[in-house]
Amino acid sequence: MFDPITMKLNIDPLLMSALREDMNSEDVTTNSVMREAILGEVELICKQDGILCGLQIFARVFELLDDRIEFIFSAKDGDFVHKGQKLGFIRGDIRALLSGERTALNYLQRMSGIATYTHEMAELMKDGSCRLLDTRKTTPNNRIFEKYAVRTGGGNNHRYNLSDGILLKDNHIGAAGGVKEAIRMAKEYAPFVRKIEIEVESLQMVKEALEAGADIIMLDNMSSDMIKEAVACIDKKAEIEVSGNVTKETVAQYMELGVDYISSGAITYAAPVMDISMKNLHRIE
Amino acid sequence: MFDPITMKLNIDPLLMSALREDMNSEDVTTNSVMREAILGEVELICKQDGILCGLQIFARVFELLDDRIEFIFSAKDGDFVHKGQKLGFIRGDIRALLSGERTALNYLQRMSGIATYTHEMAELMKDGSCRLLDTRKTTPNNRIFEKYAVRTGGGNNHRYNLSDGILLKDNHIGAAGGVKEAIRMAKEYAPFVRKIEIEVESLQMVKEALEAGADIIMLDNMSSDMIKEAVACIDKKAEIEVSGNVTKETVAQYMELGVDYISSGAITYAAPVMDISMKNLHRIE
Amino acid sequence: MFDPITMKLNIDPLLMSALREDMNSEDVTTNSVMREAILGEVELICKQDGILCGLQIFARVFELLDDRIEFIFSAKDGDFVHKGQKLGFIRGDIRALLSGERTALNYLQRMSGIATYTHEMAELMKDGSCRLLDTRKTTPNNRIFEKYAVRTGGGNNHRYNLSDGILLKDNHIGAAGGVKEAIRMAKEYAPFVRKIEIEVESLQMVKEALEAGADIIMLDNMSSDMIKEAVACIDKKAEIEVSGNVTKETVAQYMELGVDYISSGAITYAAPVMDISMKNLHRIE
Amino acid sequence: MFDPITMKLNIDPLLMSALREDMNSEDVTTNSVMREAILGEVELICKQDGILCGLQIFARVFELLDDRIEFIFSAKDGDFVHKGQKLGFIRGDIRALLSGERTALNYLQRMSGIATYTHEMAELMKDGSCRLLDTRKTTPNNRIFEKYAVRTGGGNNHRYNLSDGILLKDNHIGAAGGVKEAIRMAKEYAPFVRKIEIEVESLQMVKEALEAGADIIMLDNMSSDMIKEAVACIDKKAEIEVSGNVTKETVAQYMELGVDYISSGAITYAAPVMDISMKNLHRIE
Amino acid sequence: MFDPITMKLNIDPLLMSALREDMNSEDVTTNSVMREAILGEVELICKQDGILCGLQIFARVFELLDDRIEFIFSAKDGDFVHKGQKLGFIRGDIRALLSGERTALNYLQRMSGIATYTHEMAELMKDGSCRLLDTRKTTPNNRIFEKYAVRTGGGNNHRYNLSDGILLKDNHIGAAGGVKEAIRMAKEYAPFVRKIEIEVESLQMVKEALEAGADIIMLDNMSSDMIKEAVACIDKKAEIEVSGNVTKETVAQYMELGVDYISSGAITYAAPVMDISMKNLHRIE
Amino acid sequence: MFDPITMKLNIDPLLMSALREDMNSEDVTTNSVMREAILGEVELICKQDGILCGLQIFARVFELLDDRIEFIFSAKDGDFVHKGQKLGFIRGDIRALLSGERTALNYLQRMSGIATYTHEMAELMKDGSCRLLDTRKTTPNNRIFEKYAVRTGGGNNHRYNLSDGILLKDNHIGAAGGVKEAIRMAKEYAPFVRKIEIEVESLQMVKEALEAGADIIMLDNMSSDMIKEAVACIDKKAEIEVSGNVTKETVAQYMELGVDYISSGAITYAAPVMDISMKNLHRIE
Repeated sequence: MFDPITMKLNIDPLLMSALREDMNSEDVTTNSVMREAILGEVELICKQDGILCGLQIFARVFELLDDRIEFIFSAKDGDFVHKGQKLGFIRGDIRALLSGERTALNYLQRMSGIATYTHEMAELMKDGSCRLLDTRKTTPNNRIFEKYAVRTGGGNNHRYNLSDGILLKDNHIGAAGGVKEAIRMAKEYAPFVRKIEIEVESLQMVKEALEAGADIIMLDNMSSDMIKEAVACIDKKAEIEVSGNVTKETVAQYMELGVDYISSGAITYAAPVMDISMKNLHRIE
Repeated sequence: MFDPITMKLNIDPLLMSALREDMNSEDVTTNSVMREAILGEVELICKQDGILCGLQIFARVFELLDDRIEFIFSAKDGDFVHKGQKLGFIRGDIRALLSGERTALNYLQRMSGIATYTHEMAELMKDGSCRLLDTRKTTPNNRIFEKYAVRTGGGNNHRYNLSDGILLKDNHIGAAGGVKEAIRMAKEYAPFVRKIEIEVESLQMVKEALEAGADIIMLDNMSSDMIKEAVACIDKKAEIEVSGNVTKETVAQYMELGVDYISSGAITYAAPVMDISMKNLHRIE
Repeated sequence: MFDPITMKLNIDPLLMSALREDMNSEDVTTNSVMREAILGEVELICKQDGILCGLQIFARVFELLDDRIEFIFSAKDGDFVHKGQKLGFIRGDIRALLSGERTALNYLQRMSGIATYTHEMAELMKDGSCRLLDTRKTTPNNRIFEKYAVRTGGGNNHRYNLSDGILLKDNHIGAAGGVKEAIRMAKEYAPFVRKIEIEVESLQMVKEALEAGADIIMLDNMSSDMIKEAVACIDKKAEIEVSGNVTKETVAQYMELGVDYISSGAITYAAPVMDISMKNLHRIE
Repeated sequence: MFDPITMKLNIDPLLMSALREDMNSEDVTTNSVMREAILGEVELICKQDGILCGLQIFARVFELLDDRIEFIFSAKDGDFVHKGQKLGFIRGDIRALLSGERTALNYLQRMSGIATYTHEMAELMKDGSCRLLDTRKTTPNNRIFEKYAVRTGGGNNHRYNLSDGILLKDNHIGAAGGVKEAIRMAKEYAPFVRKIEIEVESLQMVKEALEAGADIIMLDNMSSDMIKEAVACIDKKAEIEVSGNVTKETVAQYMELGVDYISSGAITYAAPVMDISMKNLHRIE
Repeated sequence: MFDPITMKLNIDPLLMSALREDMNSEDVTTNSVMREAILGEVELICKQDGILCGLQIFARVFELLDDRIEFIFSAKDGDFVHKGQKLGFIRGDIRALLSGERTALNYLQRMSGIATYTHEMAELMKDGSCRLLDTRKTTPNNRIFEKYAVRTGGGNNHRYNLSDGILLKDNHIGAAGGVKEAIRMAKEYAPFVRKIEIEVESLQMVKEALEAGADIIMLDNMSSDMIKEAVACIDKKAEIEVSGNVTKETVAQYMELGVDYISSGAITYAAPVMDISMKNLHRIE
Repeated sequence: MFDPITMKLNIDPLLMSALREDMNSEDVTTNSVMREAILGEVELICKQDGILCGLQIFARVFELLDDRIEFIFSAKDGDFVHKGQKLGFIRGDIRALLSGERTALNYLQRMSGIATYTHEMAELMKDGSCRLLDTRKTTPNNRIFEKYAVRTGGGNNHRYNLSDGILLKDNHIGAAGGVKEAIRMAKEYAPFVRKIEIEVESLQMVKEALEAGADIIMLDNMSSDMIKEAVACIDKKAEIEVSGNVTKETVAQYMELGVDYISSGAITYAAPVMDISMKNLHRIE
């Protein structure tokens, strides 16, 4: 669940923008045939197995169009739902149901798709001790939804954006003049509540990072053998993240290496949407 | 190419919003280690075969961060590009290159993915006379990019949104009291430049739609036999669109039926992203 | 009536902007003398004969200032109202009644003026078979209100804006290299739900437009004789619009020529405002 | 001339909003036939006698679409221009010329119309010593343009909005408990740089207003005889404004009465637009 | 009290912006430990003597986060409150209480600080006949709050901003070519409801200003003797403002000079915040 | 220095809002007397000793009003400047210099005030090993400026806002059911790059926090003795912050206790503004 404060401050403006993208003046079709409010009801039906995610966003889209819309949901975010399962009913002005349908489903299908893909990868990792992380490879203007879907699917969030996490990469290290100098500069400049993460490519860099007091060491695109060496070298003195084309197909190889976190851009950019639809819209008395 | 007017009016605000999503205060990492502008250059490299799309958006993201950034592209939107191909160079303040990288690539990868998927489906249809259409199943707040990617890949755009196209569906027909009444009401209410499209489920509805003067008849989820009958009945007196779970795997069956348009939500929601990255960032004198 | 969805998405922001134009900090006069809410009532009175239009906008202005304001209207949009007629009562915090009065009336008077002028021209056309269209000659940031007022007065809307309708004019034709090429390019580029309209100046152009499959042919500033020839030539194979300084004084001459649509910029830019005022504001218990 | 600061802070946002009203995605027609920038030139031609107003706004609309657009104007705001007179040339990307034309002219025509009407009324008043004032009866979201047009036409501005001027009307007086109390409360509450204006209906109220120290006394809808008495009573101890359905037809009667200001809503709401158009758009080398 | 109209139009957007400054995605701490609404209550306690100001803003911050929040205040704006005094209770979702606390207090403490400082200076002036004015030396994007706090503390507002008051300073006088010319130009250009204020540095300028009809004469940084001379010279024919580093320490010297107004930037920029806090947050049944 | 990216994305909108606060239509005074651009020059002069901060913001305010404005500064952010010192020249359209002066100085004076106060406190701490931190007690809609001023003065930033740092207080601990549970829940929920900080009131809580793996322990309003005990108990296993009414007067007592960080709200809310002004504006050829 998103908390109501985040909904008001940071989600409503995005939903309003999405609705205006779809209606810059009015819904001409609906307004052609319905000049008055007509009370109606429609079912929300799952057409594919997966992890449901985004019901609140789905509902909020309609609420922004019609204050009196009502929902009866029989599933909730995080539930594993099945093809053919009825997820609930929506009741309100048919005009709002028709005008909001596409935008509401566009969110729900994408969020459920990400939760489902994340869940599948998290399941592959469940016997290990390392946790699955997302990245910043999210769809522009949709990060808040996609990061939430990752959590719903059993993943964890890496930093939200460039302002709230430190991740020193090769060019940062180059500009600073070396691993130690980069870490020192980050500790000096950044708010002290930031953990310092650094991306390394060699054992030498691992050692320097440890000496300089890095909180997290990211092993990027390393071979399994090299990862093992790095893990041994770090010896619990920093957290370890591995990264680099991690997908459902490749995640297994990272499970036994002793790392703490595996990050995967694929969970947000490669997740297929989940098929969910609104059916049987009909008037009610 | 997007024209410069659309860029200024309708694309810049979306890009600014995406950049602020990624930097609500500052890029802490980059600012920790680089206090001054440093001129640098980076390559844009294709890591997967496909249709390139979104170079202008990619470039604009950086221009919004650094007025003096320069680009030399050796490919353009719509080109078929290959794994390993260098697509160009970007030269400017390294801070802008680092801070804009993720947002710029998030657009380029998604747009190229859609163009590639659309192209593949359009290729499957190239021997027929019918054209491929997109739908409104686009990512919220990204429609302008995704509709453009469809065109770049060889598809055509259906209506942009609910305000600029008429599509009478079963509930509209029900509210109006029948096919003829719905079409009559739409003709009376809507701006006269709108074509009237109606979704039908039976031959009886096809006949009524023709009599009422529908411009486009959408055959939704009909069997091939039924489509054939409908096509014969319509007999060029209206344009024909077929719709319903059209993907690369299923499109072939619609090719010989004599319809004018095939619409596919999959081209925008099922397209995998295309892997493109920025590599070899280095200082230059 | 505007539907409630359009009100929320696309009208409220314009009304809020208009109210802020009139109050950038506070209503100093009202706040000088009224420190607390005082319940009051005021009458809305028509001071001129005409077609009423914009009651909803009038009411919404006050609702945006005071949630508990109440309205009892004895007329509705589209009604022909008379000088001296009471149109209703508004009841609420007197401060909202005073602060919102001018903005609310500025909308109501302009919208009723346009509806009235449109109605007068539509009446002049009522025995013919052609319909009256508006244009894009609307007041900036007021199009949604003025297009609605046209419909309320008995007119029809042409395209809403440059994004949702095709109208090929001489410079477009010139850029394309000819009538046929222009139409071909528009059919290829534009969303397929757009009708293709083209402005022609000669019978030769009419013929080419027909051959190329134009949906609508606009005869711009043609003489009556030339219009007759064009109508005969088109012979129902396309819709016909005539345009060019059409006012109440000149519309009669176009009535017997067999065209389908007559467009008039005057209905939005030449309509005098209709005099309506709020009177007899008084406290109530 | 608007100063450049006002243009940037308070006019550009209104123009951008107006342009987006006319292009919510793109100019489909223009983009169908012109995929590249084409340099072109067009003339601005006056089609009616009047006072020109708004050239800067006209130009700014195009500048917001094309940074490199150029203007050569042979007339300026406030000039009396004649039917058939060439007002200048605009040179730039033809796409910007086509896409911006309607919005730019919608401003120029309305502003010139108001300047012209104001000028006509100001001419009728030129032998007297009283000055012509506008009101807040302006088109929503267009006040800054319309107040400027009034000045261009030779009128003066009353208060800009409810926040920057005090005008105590009958309901304010009633709420305060009388003329003197209302003026006292306004003096106490309002920023001290505000003049206190009060609307009066009787000589008794005039006297009370004078005693309480009103800066301006508005005589609303009074007969000429009553105005004369009031003027005598006030005897230069406050400024005097008369108001109430002042139009070109009625203004003469107020000229000899000794008042300082005559305010007229008609100059902003009853002014017909002035016909100005862009002609002879053509490519240039 | 701010009136509800100003709250909706001009204050809510500032508060929303302030809340988004503090929560660009979500309140991570609160959301970590509270997944559901929990009803709670907290006390508002004064920790320093002073004039309370901004309770409405304090409350509105919470209302924007939680529609059902409730307040019981035992003091009101303008009250002199004491260290240790309970000012009221707030009851609502604990998440809103925690997430809004800092922003709400940041407003309340600053506004009360300004009201307190203003009150202290107003007290020093209470035996004289001149009034205390603020300036435009307010914190950016906080003027509406700070000007209100000045009134709450017993001060008066000078102009709100550059658009609603005329104040001719030396550079304006220089550009115009002299005192008289500057006043003449201002009277000609500015809305007629503006009082004309001019800053003078010599008795010669005082005389010229009087002759030209200045409404207010500002004596800037003059010695007491020079002020006395100027006051005698003006002789009630214009209002007199003195200005220039007026603080609590220096105000006494201006009290006996016969000026009408003393303006002080210090009341908005030098006021220490007042210590007020929220304590004893606890769950309730 | 702010980097140019942050300026464009996150600072320009705040400055534009501040300028519009001061000019909702136009600068009436300046426009009364200057109808054309006049090139002028003005000096920036320090009138009080202190640390200069905000020159870039000062300059940007003018640049937003006049593209061609030029600056020659002889001091830079962080410099200790002296009463009477010339800080530079600004050259540009006098209208921009006059219209922007107040807003530009309002920023510069407040930022320099905070930098100066912070510097004074940092000086008091310079012999110790602990660092000075700010808090979230900043002026609404000015945090980005005030946090920067803290860094300029030699302080460090605590978290930027509620979204990018974890700080578990008593109510969070209560909601979670205890120190350990709160830390466990935060580690599970929050992005893994967040350090976990917890506020404790007793040694028992310190121990629980250590066992649960807190990264930072905040000792709030503890006595010196209790702080010493806590420091011994923590024994470098977590970072230590002390907090609670730390001002210049009280900071000394915390210096010898072995804590890592001292946070002070006073550096942002109690800092007096620094007096800086623009003088000797004059025309230049």
